[in-house]
Amino acid sequence: MAVFSCDNPTYLCRMLTISQRGLAMPASPIRKLVPFAEQAKKKGTHVFHLNIGQPDIETPAAVLNAVRNSDFKVLEYSHSAGNESYRKKLVGYYASVGIHVTPQQIIITTGGSEAILFGFMSCLDPGDEVIIPEPFYANYNGFAVAAGVNVVPVTSFIKDGFALPPIEAFREKITSKTKAIVICNPNNPTGYAYTKAEMEALGKIIKEHNLYLFADEAYREFTYDGNQFSAMHLQDVDDHVILMDTISKRYSACGGRIGAFVTKNQQVLDAAMKFAQARLSPPSFAQIAGEAACDLPANYFETTKAEYQKRRDLVVRRLNAMEGVFCPNPGGAFYAMASLPIDDSDKFCQWLLESFSLNGSTIMLAPATGFYGTAGLGKQEVRLAYVLNTGDLEKAMDCLEQALKEYPGKV
Amino acid sequence: MAVFSCDNPTYLCRMLTISQRGLAMPASPIRKLVPFAEQAKKKGTHVFHLNIGQPDIETPAAVLNAVRNSDFKVLEYSHSAGNESYRKKLVGYYASVGIHVTPQQIIITTGGSEAILFGFMSCLDPGDEVIIPEPFYANYNGFAVAAGVNVVPVTSFIKDGFALPPIEAFREKITSKTKAIVICNPNNPTGYAYTKAEMEALGKIIKEHNLYLFADEAYREFTYDGNQFSAMHLQDVDDHVILMDTISKRYSACGGRIGAFVTKNQQVLDAAMKFAQARLSPPSFAQIAGEAACDLPANYFETTKAEYQKRRDLVVRRLNAMEGVFCPNPGGAFYAMASLPIDDSDKFCQWLLESFSLNGSTIMLAPATGFYGTAGLGKQEVRLAYVLNTGDLEKAMDCLEQALKEYPGKV
Repeated sequence: MAVFSCDNPTYLCRMLTISQRGLAMPASPIRKLVPFAEQAKKKGTHVFHLNIGQPDIETPAAVLNAVRNSDFKVLEYSHSAGNESYRKKLVGYYASVGIHVTPQQIIITTGGSEAILFGFMSCLDPGDEVIIPEPFYANYNGFAVAAGVNVVPVTSFIKDGFALPPIEAFREKITSKTKAIVICNPNNPTGYAYTKAEMEALGKIIKEHNLYLFADEAYREFTYDGNQFSAMHLQDVDDHVILMDTISKRYSACGGRIGAFVTKNQQVLDAAMKFAQARLSPPSFAQIAGEAACDLPANYFETTKAEYQKRRDLVVRRLNAMEGVFCPNPGGAFYAMASLPIDDSDKFCQWLLESFSLNGSTIMLAPATGFYGTAGLGKQEVRLAYVLNTGDLEKAMDCLEQALKEYPGKV
Repeated sequence: MAVFSCDNPTYLCRMLTISQRGLAMPASPIRKLVPFAEQAKKKGTHVFHLNIGQPDIETPAAVLNAVRNSDFKVLEYSHSAGNESYRKKLVGYYASVGIHVTPQQIIITTGGSEAILFGFMSCLDPGDEVIIPEPFYANYNGFAVAAGVNVVPVTSFIKDGFALPPIEAFREKITSKTKAIVICNPNNPTGYAYTKAEMEALGKIIKEHNLYLFADEAYREFTYDGNQFSAMHLQDVDDHVILMDTISKRYSACGGRIGAFVTKNQQVLDAAMKFAQARLSPPSFAQIAGEAACDLPANYFETTKAEYQKRRDLVVRRLNAMEGVFCPNPGGAFYAMASLPIDDSDKFCQWLLESFSLNGSTIMLAPATGFYGTAGLGKQEVRLAYVLNTGDLEKAMDCLEQALKEYPGKV
């Protein structure tokens, strides 16, 4: 009788293994501090969360009520590209920001995340390279690993306020494997709002080298000095530009998981649509929310933007008043990056949660190391998400100021 | 002055291309007939949709009302693994079907689709092989292409009612690249409900060869002769089994896009969790719906199941009464596969929409070719989703009966 075992050469045997891709997949650099925050809270310490981009701004009532007042009987699949009624409304929204597309050029996605994944999957093969100015949104790494794509960072510097690196620095990174550049504008994590001239420089290089430009414009409305210049505003590169969008930050609707994949490139749309069909449809409830958001009054963003700007001004002023701290004034989004007089931002952020408190409170920040592709960068930098009201932000800044006086790893 | 053009050897040039993966990605075989259905409707023909698994059953009011009565102010990200309160409730649901897991062994996903993708991504690398009995759910092909994985079909036959092929047929397909078997139970598209003995045969082979068993159990509650035997009921293979689940069919909540990735294998959970973190969180609204569904009365499924069983009996009886038609009695789900006396199921299904009507109506079916991995199979078979009431099903069967008399490609 045959014995089924790994010692029997009749039978192929191997260990039950995790894929190389699964092993290579990065854990969230922001969430790794969560256990320390939980520990601090257990000790009774209040934690000011400046670590994640979860806005405290209320989701507009009209957006939530559209879902709450819905009266369908069957929670059905939608079209794989999303409800046509929603895509038609989005055409109007995009036109209002100078982006002219048709409903057929929009695929509703499950958050901006899925739009990024569809772009990577549709345009890049395993081993291909995508150039991204660093520091960058850490989850691009995850989607790159999922797609087998290599991220090639081009460093931007805090001394320049994280402006676009010289276009020559991009050109130097281009190889036969390079297929795309990712630009997040306004930027997460730096808050930098790229200028028309910078975007046009990118437009030129993608045309010269036949690259895609993946444009993550989640924070479009939150620009504090003039309007955002969209990648979709670039001339003569319609086939190159793919907009990866989301309602998450725009309407404080992160949990909806509704985004959009927008491009005028029909072949890319055709490919992305096949990925969309495989997963059947985006979430139905939140599509109703997204559609209702298109009908918000034109001045909706003014209040939110004014609130964020007030917070930005406070945070930047307080940070730059601290000894040894530098924080460039971010032009958009709701993030600020600051360089601190510390040895190691990971250690410092952990120490804040483990060993520090002021009046029973401490703050949670995101170490910048997680946002750099180049090992060793970001050790003196942290990202602050100003997603708390100004009263709390003042207290959080008091904490940081005091912490920098006490931190044993001060340099 | 340098001229930036593809003719200038200084600059690397290539075409703007779609990825090989994007090209290889299959279009939905079911949705390709949609334009013909739209055309038929424009001509005024009523189309009985037996082509897709969108139930007509109403979503339980308590499930929809949980969302409609929600009173949060900010539509926030949830935990990447899903709300803890929901995962705790799911533990109770799973216990009620004899599956004993902890909240930590559950990751809430964006539909069953994402659970399948997480499994492929976490356990399989590009070039790895996954064995699937055919005919199978066509979108497995899409997730396999996304993950770079090769699907190896093992044929099941209509003459056997699509029972599990002999385990030797699986063994013959195992190579050094084989990492997993996918089993959908009860099966889409065949409706076959695998027996305890069949599942145990799979349990034996995955243990012998150290393979994962990916268990898609979307239709668990819809078994008409006794209870479903879950892969999670298998003994001594806890580390091998990954349950890919969804609320879509169970509660007629397809648009929610809520599923679950469930396993006792901690390493697999850790890997899948990194993919979950990259996409931030599953949809918040529908998690509320899913959580409410856990509180439905124990007899909730009885009514739905009785309704589906009545429809199954009708469809199977009508089909087998037609000349040259054979439909094995499916033990579960809400699908039936039938062999028809036709030349080509793709042509026939298109002809039904383009050239046939009876009393102003026609039917839309899914050609079985899209469910086979082996080219050429399924040309005499179609899948019928009995997701219409019995009155409509009778009329749809009248259509099919007459169509088979008129179809020019009858054999």
